[in-house]
Amino acid sequence: MTLETLSAIRSHGGTQTLYRHMSTSTKTPMEFSVFVPDHEDGAKLPVIWFLSGLTCTPANVTEKGEFRAACARHGFIFVAPDTSPRGDGVPDDAEAARDFGLAAGFYVNATRAPFSEHYHMRDYIETELPDVIARELPCADMSRQSIMGHSMGGHGALTVGLRNPDRFKAVSAFAPINSTINCPWGQKAMAGYLGDDQSKWEEYDACALIKNGARLPDILVDQGAADEYIETELKPDLLRDACAEAGQPLTLRIHDGYNHGYYFVSTFMNDHIEWHAERL
Amino acid sequence: MTLETLSAIRSHGGTQTLYRHMSTSTKTPMEFSVFVPDHEDGAKLPVIWFLSGLTCTPANVTEKGEFRAACARHGFIFVAPDTSPRGDGVPDDAEAARDFGLAAGFYVNATRAPFSEHYHMRDYIETELPDVIARELPCADMSRQSIMGHSMGGHGALTVGLRNPDRFKAVSAFAPINSTINCPWGQKAMAGYLGDDQSKWEEYDACALIKNGARLPDILVDQGAADEYIETELKPDLLRDACAEAGQPLTLRIHDGYNHGYYFVSTFMNDHIEWHAERL
Repeated sequence: MTLETLSAIRSHGGTQTLYRHMSTSTKTPMEFSVFVPDHEDGAKLPVIWFLSGLTCTPANVTEKGEFRAACARHGFIFVAPDTSPRGDGVPDDAEAARDFGLAAGFYVNATRAPFSEHYHMRDYIETELPDVIARELPCADMSRQSIMGHSMGGHGALTVGLRNPDRFKAVSAFAPINSTINCPWGQKAMAGYLGDDQSKWEEYDACALIKNGARLPDILVDQGAADEYIETELKPDLLRDACAEAGQPLTLRIHDGYNHGYYFVSTFMNDHIEWHAERL
Repeated sequence: MTLETLSAIRSHGGTQTLYRHMSTSTKTPMEFSVFVPDHEDGAKLPVIWFLSGLTCTPANVTEKGEFRAACARHGFIFVAPDTSPRGDGVPDDAEAARDFGLAAGFYVNATRAPFSEHYHMRDYIETELPDVIARELPCADMSRQSIMGHSMGGHGALTVGLRNPDRFKAVSAFAPINSTINCPWGQKAMAGYLGDDQSKWEEYDACALIKNGARLPDILVDQGAADEYIETELKPDLLRDACAEAGQPLTLRIHDGYNHGYYFVSTFMNDHIEWHAERL
């Protein structure tokens, strides 16, 4: 396993690096970005994972997320993976839509051909990339990890977090897809990657995981009230109801006037990092 | 004069707006972005101008500049104009290079054909756009303005500021072109826009303006030591020497490891806004 450094740029008293490596999970080259604040020799720094949304590469949050000042202040590593496999031979949506295929991996292990060949984003996020980080970044304290994400990546953060409660000390999301089973984006993606048996979708649905017994100490979700996808795709009420029924603690904040984009994410990024800091 | 709102998005407790209007200075449509923090009815907010560098539109600093949190905290309006006229009939560099023509207006009033028809960025920045802001944004306190910029826009901020010391209560720059007369970018631009008579270039050269008697209470300049343009184009030593000779106060900070891009600008943006806040 070799890690290729595509760029390493000084920012906010640390280094913002873009890496590429050959992934055994997706059988493609994968890029991810890492911010590492300056630190003492031998120091071990907590790791925040950020999963991005539809259409995104690691560049979106890295350029627009406004996370570096807070990460430098606290001494946190910030890792932003890509949203799907890419490259020659990686199948895309039949109509190249933005909600399936390239840049829309939904953090699942696909079981349906032709997507099952490369779309193993669950393995990549849950197993392979943490191993890479642990091996290649000696300053990463893998005993102190947390995870957050936006939109499709909010779905990713919630579902990865709920399936791995012992690994992540904090789980939060910006405008997440809360129930893939109950929205058009999720239904298209789950059917496409997993087939029509909806029982197979439940491990990729935050609300279903909670109904089925998964628990976290707390969850923080920020959601813009003017988000263009709130009613059709995101449905924060479903998460609120699932948490209330199950006794799962949830801090759900609805913000008047905010939409779905990075102007919203960056506004509340500092709050999320502070919330993670209390738990890391 | 009508102002068209292309987008208005809530962020950091304020509104980030992109406007378009027909400019009488450039005889083209021009776009600019404005951040206005929430404020009490009737409140008057100081205005920070940010002039961008080569290749930029208002989008670069608006998406990557990380200025909104500090502007919201202090109650500052932040205005980011475009870097040149654009559109059909606007002449470009003969070879479409990045250092002249489109997105490279150098904040001058061109006198040489064919550029003299549209490239009147000095009038646009110094006169027309301030009038637009004063008329269209009743909350703007035009008695409290300051200016900053990056690279070519750092040159713009320094020269506009030095020519208008009574208007701007603070002038600062990130990695500015310090002497257009003494660098290839500046020489190409000044010859192209103004012709070969170098005496005409001096009002667009920060060092020459200072030598010729222009003064500001103080100037803040941040510069990355790993900036790829520091030796060939930016030459901060020329500004340091010109200020020292003239007795012009200058706070010049050189930062090890930082390069020329927005990862550098965003790192020190908060410092600049705090520095402006002390003077606004």
